[in-house]
Amino acid sequence: MFFASDNGGPVPPQVLDALARANEGYASAYGADDITLRVTQKIRTLFEAPEAAVHLVATGTAANSLALATLCQPFQTVFCTPVAHIHEDECNAPEFYTGGAKLTLVPGGDLMSPEALEEAILSEEVRGVHGPQRGPVSITQATEKGSVYSLAQIAALSAVAHRYGLPVQLDGARFANACAALGCTPAEMTWKSGVDVAVFGGTKCGLMGVEAVIFFDPAKSWEFELRRKRGGHLFSKHRYLAAQIEALIDGDLWRDLAQRANARRARLQAGLETVADILGTPQANILFARLPRGTHRRLQEAGARYYLWDGTLEGPDDAPITARFVCDWSLPEAEIDRFIALLND
Amino acid sequence: MFFASDNGGPVPPQVLDALARANEGYASAYGADDITLRVTQKIRTLFEAPEAAVHLVATGTAANSLALATLCQPFQTVFCTPVAHIHEDECNAPEFYTGGAKLTLVPGGDLMSPEALEEAILSEEVRGVHGPQRGPVSITQATEKGSVYSLAQIAALSAVAHRYGLPVQLDGARFANACAALGCTPAEMTWKSGVDVAVFGGTKCGLMGVEAVIFFDPAKSWEFELRRKRGGHLFSKHRYLAAQIEALIDGDLWRDLAQRANARRARLQAGLETVADILGTPQANILFARLPRGTHRRLQEAGARYYLWDGTLEGPDDAPITARFVCDWSLPEAEIDRFIALLND
Amino acid sequence: MFFASDNGGPVPPQVLDALARANEGYASAYGADDITLRVTQKIRTLFEAPEAAVHLVATGTAANSLALATLCQPFQTVFCTPVAHIHEDECNAPEFYTGGAKLTLVPGGDLMSPEALEEAILSEEVRGVHGPQRGPVSITQATEKGSVYSLAQIAALSAVAHRYGLPVQLDGARFANACAALGCTPAEMTWKSGVDVAVFGGTKCGLMGVEAVIFFDPAKSWEFELRRKRGGHLFSKHRYLAAQIEALIDGDLWRDLAQRANARRARLQAGLETVADILGTPQANILFARLPRGTHRRLQEAGARYYLWDGTLEGPDDAPITARFVCDWSLPEAEIDRFIALLND
Amino acid sequence: MFFASDNGGPVPPQVLDALARANEGYASAYGADDITLRVTQKIRTLFEAPEAAVHLVATGTAANSLALATLCQPFQTVFCTPVAHIHEDECNAPEFYTGGAKLTLVPGGDLMSPEALEEAILSEEVRGVHGPQRGPVSITQATEKGSVYSLAQIAALSAVAHRYGLPVQLDGARFANACAALGCTPAEMTWKSGVDVAVFGGTKCGLMGVEAVIFFDPAKSWEFELRRKRGGHLFSKHRYLAAQIEALIDGDLWRDLAQRANARRARLQAGLETVADILGTPQANILFARLPRGTHRRLQEAGARYYLWDGTLEGPDDAPITARFVCDWSLPEAEIDRFIALLND
Repeated sequence: MFFASDNGGPVPPQVLDALARANEGYASAYGADDITLRVTQKIRTLFEAPEAAVHLVATGTAANSLALATLCQPFQTVFCTPVAHIHEDECNAPEFYTGGAKLTLVPGGDLMSPEALEEAILSEEVRGVHGPQRGPVSITQATEKGSVYSLAQIAALSAVAHRYGLPVQLDGARFANACAALGCTPAEMTWKSGVDVAVFGGTKCGLMGVEAVIFFDPAKSWEFELRRKRGGHLFSKHRYLAAQIEALIDGDLWRDLAQRANARRARLQAGLETVADILGTPQANILFARLPRGTHRRLQEAGARYYLWDGTLEGPDDAPITARFVCDWSLPEAEIDRFIALLND
Repeated sequence: MFFASDNGGPVPPQVLDALARANEGYASAYGADDITLRVTQKIRTLFEAPEAAVHLVATGTAANSLALATLCQPFQTVFCTPVAHIHEDECNAPEFYTGGAKLTLVPGGDLMSPEALEEAILSEEVRGVHGPQRGPVSITQATEKGSVYSLAQIAALSAVAHRYGLPVQLDGARFANACAALGCTPAEMTWKSGVDVAVFGGTKCGLMGVEAVIFFDPAKSWEFELRRKRGGHLFSKHRYLAAQIEALIDGDLWRDLAQRANARRARLQAGLETVADILGTPQANILFARLPRGTHRRLQEAGARYYLWDGTLEGPDDAPITARFVCDWSLPEAEIDRFIALLND
Repeated sequence: MFFASDNGGPVPPQVLDALARANEGYASAYGADDITLRVTQKIRTLFEAPEAAVHLVATGTAANSLALATLCQPFQTVFCTPVAHIHEDECNAPEFYTGGAKLTLVPGGDLMSPEALEEAILSEEVRGVHGPQRGPVSITQATEKGSVYSLAQIAALSAVAHRYGLPVQLDGARFANACAALGCTPAEMTWKSGVDVAVFGGTKCGLMGVEAVIFFDPAKSWEFELRRKRGGHLFSKHRYLAAQIEALIDGDLWRDLAQRANARRARLQAGLETVADILGTPQANILFARLPRGTHRRLQEAGARYYLWDGTLEGPDDAPITARFVCDWSLPEAEIDRFIALLND
Repeated sequence: MFFASDNGGPVPPQVLDALARANEGYASAYGADDITLRVTQKIRTLFEAPEAAVHLVATGTAANSLALATLCQPFQTVFCTPVAHIHEDECNAPEFYTGGAKLTLVPGGDLMSPEALEEAILSEEVRGVHGPQRGPVSITQATEKGSVYSLAQIAALSAVAHRYGLPVQLDGARFANACAALGCTPAEMTWKSGVDVAVFGGTKCGLMGVEAVIFFDPAKSWEFELRRKRGGHLFSKHRYLAAQIEALIDGDLWRDLAQRANARRARLQAGLETVADILGTPQANILFARLPRGTHRRLQEAGARYYLWDGTLEGPDDAPITARFVCDWSLPEAEIDRFIALLND
């Protein structure tokens, strides 16, 4: 009954197989190997973007920070939501990689609204040289709260950003879950909706640790490579990153894994709804729920693992707490059912 | 006939097996998993350092830069040789991670001499607030040129550094090769010789990409962790890093692989010596040799892969060029013999 | 009728005289001159802090950023209000000087409340290595909106900060105005109320450009000096900075100038109140007022200079706009009276 | 007998007068005042560069670092000599402002040779993504050793730099001394010789602390302004910087002061040559001389102030030491004569 995160589960067998296959003979280092060249093409094909620059890194924080550093001058500001991973969970990595840029928190929840974005943009750069200058807009799809932007919403945000000449970066740590939820293509969810740079996250989808950063305009590709190297994120034995993500792309495994994870969240949600309030409208593989504390205590004692998001373990039984549940692709349905049974005990 | 690098070969089967074994069930993320806890202990045991702080990262550049950033203020300077990897091959990563510290190049070759180090230390911090302040001393073992410091030499360098209150960092991308060459223990080559922070390189030894950074005094362990996170180098699925390095440590596989690589260099050297001048005194798995250009051209055409280090492909046949040969653990002896036969054709 | 800022007026004659007197013969450079040594003592005496480290810089942005960089690690966050100068008006200088630290905006207005500060502190460092770590608390006295913290309020904020082991930095660009408004001593407004590092602003008080940064605990004095130098803020002809601030301190000129500026604000306020709404409780030399747009247009046409803070020039006459008025020490009372007469026309 | 530095003397009366004149009434802040606008034009006229961007800062370190940061990406390297002020005397300010770029020391003395520059350029960027990329070339005129490049030498260095697409920055802390020594125009010594960005130093020439940074191509002017602001180097009361440098430009005071300083060095040199070896070929206001230690001790005791550059106070009387002598514009000829008399005693 592991609902703590989508970074706690195993990788699918295809990934281990791909690593074993990649482990043959000698290969050029630093990304000049055949697998990297091949998977670069496959990612371009997947995104219907034959000119795109594709770079692999091992962590989401690296992917976001390097992408933003390439898009953002140190005297600019990045627009994001108050719950964005780049703001809350990267220990100032974007500030570090950009050389000291700021993050402007667009008021609202996890889904940025075009109106709030425009207002935030208007509120910056009105102080001339004194305030930070406007920089990229960073959105997260799916969000840290499990919401998913519709294609129209992404397009509307991009339109606002582009009206002010600002590039749009998409943090896609859960890109696959969002894409699966929308039933759209990667191209539709990115450049066809105005996204300039996308992170296609492999780690939370089922890899050991690989993210692809895709610049639909390749003009800054070399700069990204230099920044990746000086960040210590260029792997010498690059084939092992490439092999993993190739396994994810071949046969659309990414979509399959994401659909599984999303379906498990739906199954869990259906069970939870009888005793808990579901917050927001979960569409990916995450949900937040308000439970009676007594229930929470009982679940914990039975071995269920998930995050207590708001509230404390101590207190009256009937007062509600908020918990976060994340479903990994690997989560057995039987475990969910066992959890639900426990819930209804 | 692949002598281009020790980052182009496959990983030994033990590593793939370890990854497969690690791929069971759920594990806590970000280094709180059982394998990480276990391998941390094993590394402490290997280094006879029960209090040491051990941190894993995926690349050597990350290992060096994060270690130096933890030891060095931005207004200080790092002492290293002119051919140090941190100076020549990390695209300013140490400058980036330290927030703009300087590197002072201690004159000499790849093996820093205690006298030259002391002179360099004395030449800094004489300008008060105007010049950079003295920071850590970084040495490379084995060096980029294939030399290996004796234990006495490391101790002498450490003594100089400590006399001025400076910490010693050891870049051990080829730690195993040096340790095998010296026939000493990891403890002897590090803290027993005065090293304060060591990088135990797994990647060039045979892993996909894992390096252990070991602080013998754990006081700055938490600062390192924060710097690792904000550098994007904290892996969520940390068990896959830990499993790799555990495979390397179990049964002293690291020493076995390093001995193999060193022995292959010796075999290659014996063959080369008949037609080429060997530069310096190779002790690890690297050698530099001066060959007639005609021989070089013939080898290249026959498919041998190694780096032309100094000189050009074009020019008279009998003029010498310098080439670098690196032997991976996986290099078949038959390939070396084929190469030598070709050489003597 | 210049109410645009307190950085647009002339310096008092004492400052020019002091520069002329300082301009005799040869002096040691970089702060080793007699005037600097003397004024350092005078500032220590003024602040009743015989051990304090005193450093001079030429701009408020430098003073704040260097102080914060000395107090804050790059993986930490600075607590300040949403209208703090360090957040809004320094083009990311704190982020730059700290090497990429974050600014956490404590919700509320220009006067930070101890409760809001504590809540903000509690909300950080709950994410372990993922979020930024808690860093210094920065308060502004007088605030950018013209409010002045009482001594009790400063003490309460310091108590919260110190409870969590965090240092308190006071941005005193308008230190003199606040101190004059409170009728307290500099010591009372700083270390006696728990402030660890204070900026004593000379520029807005009447100098050409000098700020004193005072560390009541001198332990980090040398680090500050190194950071000042590498920021390009160490003046070679340091006596000209020192002479200016000596002029300000001798005979408590700073208090006299500040009282004048505050009194002019009060006179202006009294006149404005008949036709405008005064926002907040101005205590220093700044006030914000809501005026009918028609009145605003008439004032502008008559040559009055002040900032339109909120609203636009175009629009119906009777709709209100918000304007900022700042009174310099040099503002002739007759100009205020002329402005008020115009207002009542 | 003050030969310690050209930052220890007073400013000429014209500067105090200019400050007094500037101190009238109200002025726009942050460089929008009339004096700044006027002096910007005067500098453009002086440099025969009607399109140039002109920015004022208060220190040479700020001028150099901000110029380089605007020209250099963090993954690049700046080419300079081993004795360049930016390398030796700015406490890593260029590394800080560029966000961690490197400085490549072109072998040789204080005058960079085109051949050595080209060799250094060729030695960088041969390691692809691993090494730093080529960045700006920084030359110092006059040099820290008192040499002066001829116009042909500057043109030759610029030609090499431009052949590789690299911009040329001129550190002109002693611009006036060099220009006076060459008897050329500022335009000839800068853009007509291929310089892209020049620092016109006012401080060592006779101001309290003002340097003009001149971009002959104004394309990066706004970026410079943002970097200046976030470095804390934008003065609010900018007129006091502008007034000083206007005093220097009016009537070519800068050339007059520089000629005086150079002439004093020549007078001193003539006297020194009888008892000391002059190093190199002094052309500006600095000279280095080798003196018998006994003479040095006698001079020190008689109150002469200059730097002991190489050697120690203790030791045999007849062994030579090296001393640095710098002549300020304000140095009375009688003091030089007194010093020479002492020398010959």
